Amino acid sequence: MKINENFSRLEKNYLFIEIAKRVKAYETAHPDVSLIRMGIGDVTRPIVPAVIEAMKKGVDEMGDPKTFKGYEDSGTGYDFLKQAVASYYQSFGVTVALDEIRINDGAKSDTGNIVDVFGKGTVALITDPAYPVYVDTNIMAGNTVIYADSTEENGFAAMPDPNVRADVIYLCSPNNPTGSVYTKEQLKIWVDYAKENDAVIIFDAAYEAFISDPTLPRSIFEIEGARTCAVEMCSLSKTAGFTGMRCGYTVIPNELTAKTESGDTVRLSEIWNRRQGSKFNGVSYPVQCAAAAVFTEEGLKQIRENIAYYQNNAKIIGDTLDALGIFYTGGKHSPYIWMKCPRGMDSWTFFDFLLDQAHVVGTPGAGFGKNGTHFFRLTAFNTPENTKRAMENLKNALK
Amino acid sequence: MKINENFSRLEKNYLFIEIAKRVKAYETAHPDVSLIRMGIGDVTRPIVPAVIEAMKKGVDEMGDPKTFKGYEDSGTGYDFLKQAVASYYQSFGVTVALDEIRINDGAKSDTGNIVDVFGKGTVALITDPAYPVYVDTNIMAGNTVIYADSTEENGFAAMPDPNVRADVIYLCSPNNPTGSVYTKEQLKIWVDYAKENDAVIIFDAAYEAFISDPTLPRSIFEIEGARTCAVEMCSLSKTAGFTGMRCGYTVIPNELTAKTESGDTVRLSEIWNRRQGSKFNGVSYPVQCAAAAVFTEEGLKQIRENIAYYQNNAKIIGDTLDALGIFYTGGKHSPYIWMKCPRGMDSWTFFDFLLDQAHVVGTPGAGFGKNGTHFFRLTAFNTPENTKRAMENLKNALK
Repeated sequence: MKINENFSRLEKNYLFIEIAKRVKAYETAHPDVSLIRMGIGDVTRPIVPAVIEAMKKGVDEMGDPKTFKGYEDSGTGYDFLKQAVASYYQSFGVTVALDEIRINDGAKSDTGNIVDVFGKGTVALITDPAYPVYVDTNIMAGNTVIYADSTEENGFAAMPDPNVRADVIYLCSPNNPTGSVYTKEQLKIWVDYAKENDAVIIFDAAYEAFISDPTLPRSIFEIEGARTCAVEMCSLSKTAGFTGMRCGYTVIPNELTAKTESGDTVRLSEIWNRRQGSKFNGVSYPVQCAAAAVFTEEGLKQIRENIAYYQNNAKIIGDTLDALGIFYTGGKHSPYIWMKCPRGMDSWTFFDFLLDQAHVVGTPGAGFGKNGTHFFRLTAFNTPENTKRAMENLKNALK
Repeated sequence: MKINENFSRLEKNYLFIEIAKRVKAYETAHPDVSLIRMGIGDVTRPIVPAVIEAMKKGVDEMGDPKTFKGYEDSGTGYDFLKQAVASYYQSFGVTVALDEIRINDGAKSDTGNIVDVFGKGTVALITDPAYPVYVDTNIMAGNTVIYADSTEENGFAAMPDPNVRADVIYLCSPNNPTGSVYTKEQLKIWVDYAKENDAVIIFDAAYEAFISDPTLPRSIFEIEGARTCAVEMCSLSKTAGFTGMRCGYTVIPNELTAKTESGDTVRLSEIWNRRQGSKFNGVSYPVQCAAAAVFTEEGLKQIRENIAYYQNNAKIIGDTLDALGIFYTGGKHSPYIWMKCPRGMDSWTFFDFLLDQAHVVGTPGAGFGKNGTHFFRLTAFNTPENTKRAMENLKNALK
């Protein structure tokens, strides 16, 4: 068979492998040290009771001939869950129709698979640093990847260069890895740029639930004009601890169209539905029951307690960095803190320093792009006790 | 943005839409008639108790901080489930290593997404008739699709033409839609052909659990040489009624390699892992618990009762067609019966005839390829009572 040659253009995905290797070596050499893990972006709190109960009810229905569910008709999710997602959107002022919502097994799948609908010669504009999936999936598809720089100067919130042309634009806000959040004014500039370029914005809103300032946009559809130029991917992974449950949703507005080479106007939603119709068969029914329970009054109350727990950890980290006078972004509306490595260290040097001197495992910024070379990602996904201990250790290490 | 132009090359996917339209029109005109649905290939029996219990236990673990599971490390499935799958394979004499098994959300995803690893200019050889996903996903990827004819003459078990070259070959046995099963000798010819062509066989074994003759192969890996030229996709959808639960597995042997343009040898499993690492994040933990329970002694006993229930329905259909002297394939080791339309009718004419005269909804063979023009698919996924009534109605209609 012929192999897709684009795979050889991918950078070796060694970030978390290299981290695991260095951690293992350290643990072997220092068996008595208890390390504090603030690296990988995975939640630590269990699924809330309202969700557990709803899922068990869904499982029971699958065992009863009267309520058993086979294939979903559409494969895009049950209406009861789409209705719950639409109501959630409405709670921050965004109206989406049920047929614009697609339930999936987590944001990564759609965020990666969306490249299937892009045409040959697509130019993808991606912020640097960024979640590696955006870059890697475009390279696999043979697309051209160009970058918009997120830097200390712009608060790690890259803005478009009007002289640069792109077909597709990937934005993530609150950002992984930098935790920075675009304002409505900033997103409006991106939307205008996309329309100027006939480009589509792939908006990753996986961390929107961490936004506590109501003036900051939680959805790109809060921005005028976005419905004709943007797709939004969201997930319950960080919102409700679904990293092991697997459920998310994608919103494709019905107004969003593109032109074929022959000049026909096609709805992006129709092309995507056709793609999914051949490559996806919907989300497990009990998982959809669990997801719908997240958006009930009780579910929202319970998940907000978990989010507040993580936000408190983020504040502990932020306060420490403020006290140390270290520049950082994130932490306020995001579970991620993106800090400048102290003493001019590069991110891998600081990784080793932090591991050895503070017994903390974090993620070197270099793993997210060249602008991360001197930056470092810490996560709020730990206990307050461990987070405090980590910050005490960091302070002592830098004395 | 630029749209993937290959989507315009797809045939309109109107089969089930057209069926729904005609059924609705009939029901409106005949409100008193109770139709018997034997069209769509979806199971009707609920999930067995052993699986329900295991899944609820898995859900409870997600609600407990001591047993909560976040992201899976590999995203390819938990070892406990891979072990269960490996033991199941061993039960019919096939040895697969745990790192050759990938747990997924159903066979359709991997069967469709596998095109991502194929190179430019790939020629895909697909039997006609076939499950439309094989054809459509290759067209979306811009590949060339050629066909191997399954006909009445070869018992709807297409064999390779040594003069035809292909890079990838799609085989499904027991076949959807024809129910025909390849013998070991026939599969050996395909394996030899694939090796001769340096081609890879994508083997869809989604219906293997319906095979009751131990001399018929349930896995392509029962065939000598297949480990260097085949990938196998399997699913719990029909095996254990998981159409709404969503779990399947793909086996990629470690020996399976391909050459890049520059002559390097790469393992297909590594390319696929790289693809999945960017576009998939594993299967819901409770669903994996449910899947593992299928392969326990109790689970297997319970699912076999359901399979026997469907097999009995298939026998009712087969016996009727035998009595009527109508040619068909399938039904013995498959939930599908592929019958020749009587009186020279084409498949859509017979659809209307069956609907009107026997009150039965089936699937016109034309929806699966040109060789289905005069054939028709019936499924065993109904109650014995309905199946008997449908066959009585058919007999009366043909009197």
